[in-house]
Amino acid sequence: MPKPTIITCAITGGDDTAGRFRAVPVTPRQIADSAIEACRAGAAIAHIHVRNPETGKPSIELALYREVVERIRDSGSPVIVNLTTGAGARFIPSDDAPNTVAEGSNLRTPAERARHIAALRPEICSLDMGSLNFGKGALINIQKHVEAIAAVIREAGVKPELEIFDTGHIALARHMMNEGLIEQNPLWQFVMGVPWGAPSDTDVLLAMRNLLPSGANWSAFGIGAKEYPMLAQAALLGGHVRVGLEDNLYVEKGVQATSNAQLVEKGVNVLQTLGFEVATPKQAREILGLQAL
Amino acid sequence: MPKPTIITCAITGGDDTAGRFRAVPVTPRQIADSAIEACRAGAAIAHIHVRNPETGKPSIELALYREVVERIRDSGSPVIVNLTTGAGARFIPSDDAPNTVAEGSNLRTPAERARHIAALRPEICSLDMGSLNFGKGALINIQKHVEAIAAVIREAGVKPELEIFDTGHIALARHMMNEGLIEQNPLWQFVMGVPWGAPSDTDVLLAMRNLLPSGANWSAFGIGAKEYPMLAQAALLGGHVRVGLEDNLYVEKGVQATSNAQLVEKGVNVLQTLGFEVATPKQAREILGLQAL
Amino acid sequence: MPKPTIITCAITGGDDTAGRFRAVPVTPRQIADSAIEACRAGAAIAHIHVRNPETGKPSIELALYREVVERIRDSGSPVIVNLTTGAGARFIPSDDAPNTVAEGSNLRTPAERARHIAALRPEICSLDMGSLNFGKGALINIQKHVEAIAAVIREAGVKPELEIFDTGHIALARHMMNEGLIEQNPLWQFVMGVPWGAPSDTDVLLAMRNLLPSGANWSAFGIGAKEYPMLAQAALLGGHVRVGLEDNLYVEKGVQATSNAQLVEKGVNVLQTLGFEVATPKQAREILGLQAL
Amino acid sequence: MPKPTIITCAITGGDDTAGRFRAVPVTPRQIADSAIEACRAGAAIAHIHVRNPETGKPSIELALYREVVERIRDSGSPVIVNLTTGAGARFIPSDDAPNTVAEGSNLRTPAERARHIAALRPEICSLDMGSLNFGKGALINIQKHVEAIAAVIREAGVKPELEIFDTGHIALARHMMNEGLIEQNPLWQFVMGVPWGAPSDTDVLLAMRNLLPSGANWSAFGIGAKEYPMLAQAALLGGHVRVGLEDNLYVEKGVQATSNAQLVEKGVNVLQTLGFEVATPKQAREILGLQAL
Ligand SMILES: [Zn+2]
Ligand SMILES: [Zn+2]
Ligand SMILES: [Zn+2]
Ligand SMILES: [Zn+2]
Repeated sequence: MPKPTIITCAITGGDDTAGRFRAVPVTPRQIADSAIEACRAGAAIAHIHVRNPETGKPSIELALYREVVERIRDSGSPVIVNLTTGAGARFIPSDDAPNTVAEGSNLRTPAERARHIAALRPEICSLDMGSLNFGKGALINIQKHVEAIAAVIREAGVKPELEIFDTGHIALARHMMNEGLIEQNPLWQFVMGVPWGAPSDTDVLLAMRNLLPSGANWSAFGIGAKEYPMLAQAALLGGHVRVGLEDNLYVEKGVQATSNAQLVEKGVNVLQTLGFEVATPKQAREILGLQAL
Repeated sequence: MPKPTIITCAITGGDDTAGRFRAVPVTPRQIADSAIEACRAGAAIAHIHVRNPETGKPSIELALYREVVERIRDSGSPVIVNLTTGAGARFIPSDDAPNTVAEGSNLRTPAERARHIAALRPEICSLDMGSLNFGKGALINIQKHVEAIAAVIREAGVKPELEIFDTGHIALARHMMNEGLIEQNPLWQFVMGVPWGAPSDTDVLLAMRNLLPSGANWSAFGIGAKEYPMLAQAALLGGHVRVGLEDNLYVEKGVQATSNAQLVEKGVNVLQTLGFEVATPKQAREILGLQAL
Repeated sequence: MPKPTIITCAITGGDDTAGRFRAVPVTPRQIADSAIEACRAGAAIAHIHVRNPETGKPSIELALYREVVERIRDSGSPVIVNLTTGAGARFIPSDDAPNTVAEGSNLRTPAERARHIAALRPEICSLDMGSLNFGKGALINIQKHVEAIAAVIREAGVKPELEIFDTGHIALARHMMNEGLIEQNPLWQFVMGVPWGAPSDTDVLLAMRNLLPSGANWSAFGIGAKEYPMLAQAALLGGHVRVGLEDNLYVEKGVQATSNAQLVEKGVNVLQTLGFEVATPKQAREILGLQAL
Repeated sequence: MPKPTIITCAITGGDDTAGRFRAVPVTPRQIADSAIEACRAGAAIAHIHVRNPETGKPSIELALYREVVERIRDSGSPVIVNLTTGAGARFIPSDDAPNTVAEGSNLRTPAERARHIAALRPEICSLDMGSLNFGKGALINIQKHVEAIAAVIREAGVKPELEIFDTGHIALARHMMNEGLIEQNPLWQFVMGVPWGAPSDTDVLLAMRNLLPSGANWSAFGIGAKEYPMLAQAALLGGHVRVGLEDNLYVEKGVQATSNAQLVEKGVNVLQTLGFEVATPKQAREILGLQAL
């Protein structure tokens, strides 16, 4: 009997989508409400970035994170809160003098990137496991920086969700697990279809799954139009899944999603039609080894 | 009947090995001689970096590349010359101010990285297809820079060898092929086992092979102790192979290699024992669609 | 843009289900009507066995096949008719004298197994590509018999659907294609989850797909509770799909299907939810290289 | 640190090779001597069939098995004896009356096939896990017969080597392990490249490996010219290996092997060149959970 499948909903992300798509939540209240609704629709975990309430641009303000977390906790929602530490890694070298950074870069120190984890101790937080091209620039997460963020996560007693953008990131994660720098039972999250990370491809997903320690909890998601194909694919291979407006803005071809809950509902439908059980937050905590509420 | 297997020998690389390992060739004469010997031992292609003859440190001096190329051509050796364009991509963000670069970085403009290709028109040159963590820092090859180097390669009429450090790099390469920015019949080179790129793993290699266009010419190699296991694995999956002091300094466990030719000889032995035919330079030119000498 | 996905509906099969499950069609009229309805629901192909109208047991009576085919053709339904040649291969050796056959065996000559193909010239017919354990006994399709049935199929100008119960069956099929005994563009059908054939497993399906000639049209299906998981998996890997009461009697866990059309509808729903287009009979004929109606 | 790799040598087999190839051992003394030499050359296990000393045809005479086993034991050789139970499964249906068997069939009862196991209690014996086409006919091992032979093996306290000719055979083996009919730590042996079983293909081997329980001891071998490619492939995927005159008669293209020891030596050479350690009989007993001598 397979374990129930955990749905994570990625509520808002950090892309330049807030102005252009009305459904994307921006204020702490909107973000918290969207997470709570997503949970009612079937998501056990809400993966959360924050945005500047005025501009809609991505932010790393502690106060914004705090407001989101408190609103969710105060609501009584059982949703598991997963805060990003991904912001602060974008790098674009200058064209003429590539040893200097160009506009659009936003590299931050590990301390800045993990401050809200230490302060708010969510149940889960993400940890980007490496560097890769990302759109016009690159995401830079060198080993030393990953180790520094991981140290904050360990000290805060937070479960790391390892963001795996390609197969080499698994190698670094396993190395850090061997060194005791990452706990022995993390949640693995395979990001598929980001240009130019691992593609939304079954062969690659299978290879990545086979690189994990036996019994690992892993999840995967596809960007854009591959959201539901990769959701089905991950579940069929024994993985957990993720949907949400961070990853995909359309509920079907040409039709914008109206809410995160709508995307979750469609995910629940696909999973149940294929015979999978959707994990409640309580079941998800058991599967992941998180404390019960 | 399978095609003969092409052996590339990576003569010297750009790592900090020249001082520590006597076999690593340093001067243009040493590099050229080592390439010629490697060819006699069975390598059809010599992949070449240059080094400062005094310090042994990696260099991108045009005069050094020129001397190596001329020495090889003048020798009458049929070896196919493959020059690197990989130098100039190492980035280490500063710890305290990550938007500035730290010591050890050596980012260069695409024009600098490709100057010797335009000037010397080797038969093949490498083209790094993306960014990834690399040792303590990262290799940075953002899309725009890859495109700029690719443009020089096209104009010079040189066959690109696409350096694939992980699965996402294939996606960028195929995108650029679709855009006409890379020719339709490149040589694919899978780099396995660099920390923290794709690991030396059969599942991953198989997935990468399956991402290629049908009929593609591809090669793979493993770093360090995985050199010969990955050589065998690549050949078994229908790929070409690479050995050499850039990738591995030991001919067996605990025994330093005395020359590139020695590493090539061992590769020839493995291939022939498993029933593969080793391609001559002439056969390699036919397979890759290069002009006959 | 991927090709539309072809749904085959396997209408009734030859298992001992007719008495026990009311939905399983028995008479030629029931079988023809069920095929026509399945087509209305989205199936482009109907895969057909016949049964003794009195007993419900499997039959190979030409008159029964003829009545089914004529009823479908006379109805004007565009459904593509695919007749089985699988009946007549069950073998159970006697316990005490294993060189004699036990009760339950029904081995027939190739001529008997293919007679209705020569007489009725359906657009497609199945061709079992090998032997394997099957329930308590074995299915026996030795090479000589497969070749004899294939000869009838070729002479009748019928498209063969190669029933692949395990990876070795692909090897025989490719061998026969090389010998000119099977046409160059057959439909491959992977049967997953029959005890004791290839299991309903993604690794195995991927390996089987990778053994096919480039560009091959292939389909796969899972037996029993794996019907919809394997339908999704096949489509995700670029294959066509099959559902129907021959393979699975339940529309969801514990709920018996009321008709083939109901199973097809659920398949259409899964495919469309995942973003696939369902092929019409017209599109299916184009994809498979069958003559237009 | 990977475990040492176990080499099995398949000494003589049951094919019609004895007359045609001088190196194939025939008499009990020749078979025993060849096994002892193969062990000196590096094989930890000898897989043994017997032959009629006069005709060279395959035999299942208990006296012949007994003589081979006693000769090996009396020699003091540490080689692990592995006796076949495969003989007695060939079936060719009669052309005109397929429910009767044709000449060339040699189906025997499970009791006959396992008699020498009960009598001689070798450390290991083979157990064929299913049916498939095999040359002009089929090998028939229906579930009931496999279970009957497995019962003898269990009662004799012998380690079963599960002969897996295709992926479905793994499913039956796992089913029987779940039922307690096969012990929890068998040796799995993947037979690759028999017409028409699983082909000598990396994709298929990987899929089969992935179907095993975690930590399983498995081995694989390729027939004919694929012997050494599959030996390398199995070792690279973490498996044990097999060579020998049962599987392959040529030490290289066009050059007949002169002895089993010669084939083993070549296998040792390939393994050591690729960095693998070859298991001694003592190490093999530890790995497989057999009693020390
Ligand atoms: Zn995020
Ligand atoms: Zn290089
Ligand atoms: Zn059928
Ligand atoms: Zn044998």
